[in-house]
Amino acid sequence: MNITLAQAEKIIQSAKEKSISLNTKMNIAIVDAGANPVAFARMDGAWLGSLDIAIKKAKTARLFDTDTGMIGELSQPGGPLYNIEHSNHGLITFPGGIPLKNSEGDIIGAIGISGSTVENDHAVAQAGAGAI
Amino acid sequence: MNITLAQAEKIIQSAKEKSISLNTKMNIAIVDAGANPVAFARMDGAWLGSLDIAIKKAKTARLFDTDTGMIGELSQPGGPLYNIEHSNHGLITFPGGIPLKNSEGDIIGAIGISGSTVENDHAVAQAGAGAI
Amino acid sequence: MNITLAQAEKIIQSAKEKSISLNTKMNIAIVDAGANPVAFARMDGAWLGSLDIAIKKAKTARLFDTDTGMIGELSQPGGPLYNIEHSNHGLITFPGGIPLKNSEGDIIGAIGISGSTVENDHAVAQAGAGAI
Amino acid sequence: MNITLAQAEKIIQSAKEKSISLNTKMNIAIVDAGANPVAFARMDGAWLGSLDIAIKKAKTARLFDTDTGMIGELSQPGGPLYNIEHSNHGLITFPGGIPLKNSEGDIIGAIGISGSTVENDHAVAQAGAGAI
Repeated sequence: MNITLAQAEKIIQSAKEKSISLNTKMNIAIVDAGANPVAFARMDGAWLGSLDIAIKKAKTARLFDTDTGMIGELSQPGGPLYNIEHSNHGLITFPGGIPLKNSEGDIIGAIGISGSTVENDHAVAQAGAGAI
Repeated sequence: MNITLAQAEKIIQSAKEKSISLNTKMNIAIVDAGANPVAFARMDGAWLGSLDIAIKKAKTARLFDTDTGMIGELSQPGGPLYNIEHSNHGLITFPGGIPLKNSEGDIIGAIGISGSTVENDHAVAQAGAGAI
Repeated sequence: MNITLAQAEKIIQSAKEKSISLNTKMNIAIVDAGANPVAFARMDGAWLGSLDIAIKKAKTARLFDTDTGMIGELSQPGGPLYNIEHSNHGLITFPGGIPLKNSEGDIIGAIGISGSTVENDHAVAQAGAGAI
Repeated sequence: MNITLAQAEKIIQSAKEKSISLNTKMNIAIVDAGANPVAFARMDGAWLGSLDIAIKKAKTARLFDTDTGMIGELSQPGGPLYNIEHSNHGLITFPGGIPLKNSEGDIIGAIGISGSTVENDHAVAQAGAGAI
């Protein structure tokens, strides 16, 4: 099972609405089951540098089928996955990336959000993931 | 002057409609005046490899403020810009990338299309560029 | 639909047998539907540099859902896809990469072979692809 | 002395069996004495992102002729090899990579495993290394 563009656009719309409600400007990226980008949007005035972070968060969430923040807890100095960020042409392991599941629970892709605090990034990612 | 996300989304919508009318499946990328991605969409079933090409076409069109195909004519063996594709982390210089202008004629970004023949790619890029 | 490791190993086995029958030493790479590597094997004495080429051939065949040699015909100087090789972190567009299909005709991955003449590379890729 | 493909395949088979006995899904990579990949396998359902990690673990183990976890102890903040992961196009320094030796004790390559806890990764790497 793989995400469709229509699903990705619906997710981006929900993420944008949540971002506006939080008074933030986000970069929003969606990847498919193969961790390849499907769609993204950079809201007006969002940080330029956050686009690559949003894409890497989405990629990271699908590469390991978990929220990015979970990996970040394990990759700290002294942790079991210290410096895992050097793999796969660069990972981002702080919150804001979440796997996307269909109604059967299959992972069909992932969303990555960057542009505000990690708490806001994660909240917007959740809003996006909840749209399907 | 810089493109807005709303403009980019309008352009993508027009490009999708043109793509469907040509019975093609396209990757559609929009960059801003700084040649940084603003929005993209991979239509269902479009070639996986065309997404990066679409982004590179858009980037190339803005980096040199011209249609990508014009650069491709100059980058051939013996030409004045031979192998310019090695610069800027990779250019794509065949047709499908076009600068985007506002109503005053200012370049505010660029569109890149990939997924079919270069003729179709260029036609869809033109349809997108015409939306604003 | 996505290739399984068991299918990939069966394909590698067939490719090795064909390679031996041609008195060649090959690098054999299999990617899945997302163009991500599943399995590979470098036969004893095969060129070291051919491993990356085999992986890039497999990737290229899946990224554009066609034999790599078909792209190479279009990417020549003066051709419509001149220098497409600069996209997607590097493509290889001479023969030796072939999409892999299941019995329903769905593309489930791709095989890439490198280590001899392009004719031999292609023949071994075909032998591998025919194993499923 | 260098590992053969037949040895690499035997190691992968043992690693797969150990992985199944631990109820895990692993990415398994083998490099030769030159730290160049010889063979790898991604088990069905294994994390996509672990393939690159498995390869980097194998590479790291051979580049420094030691278990990857030993390097990770030295690369922590304040440690003598702090951030050595930036070298060699990316190292992975947590457990799961082990040098491979022949019966005379010569290092002939290395194995890298990724897909579970670092304890499981290391246990599977040991099972693989013990096959020759």
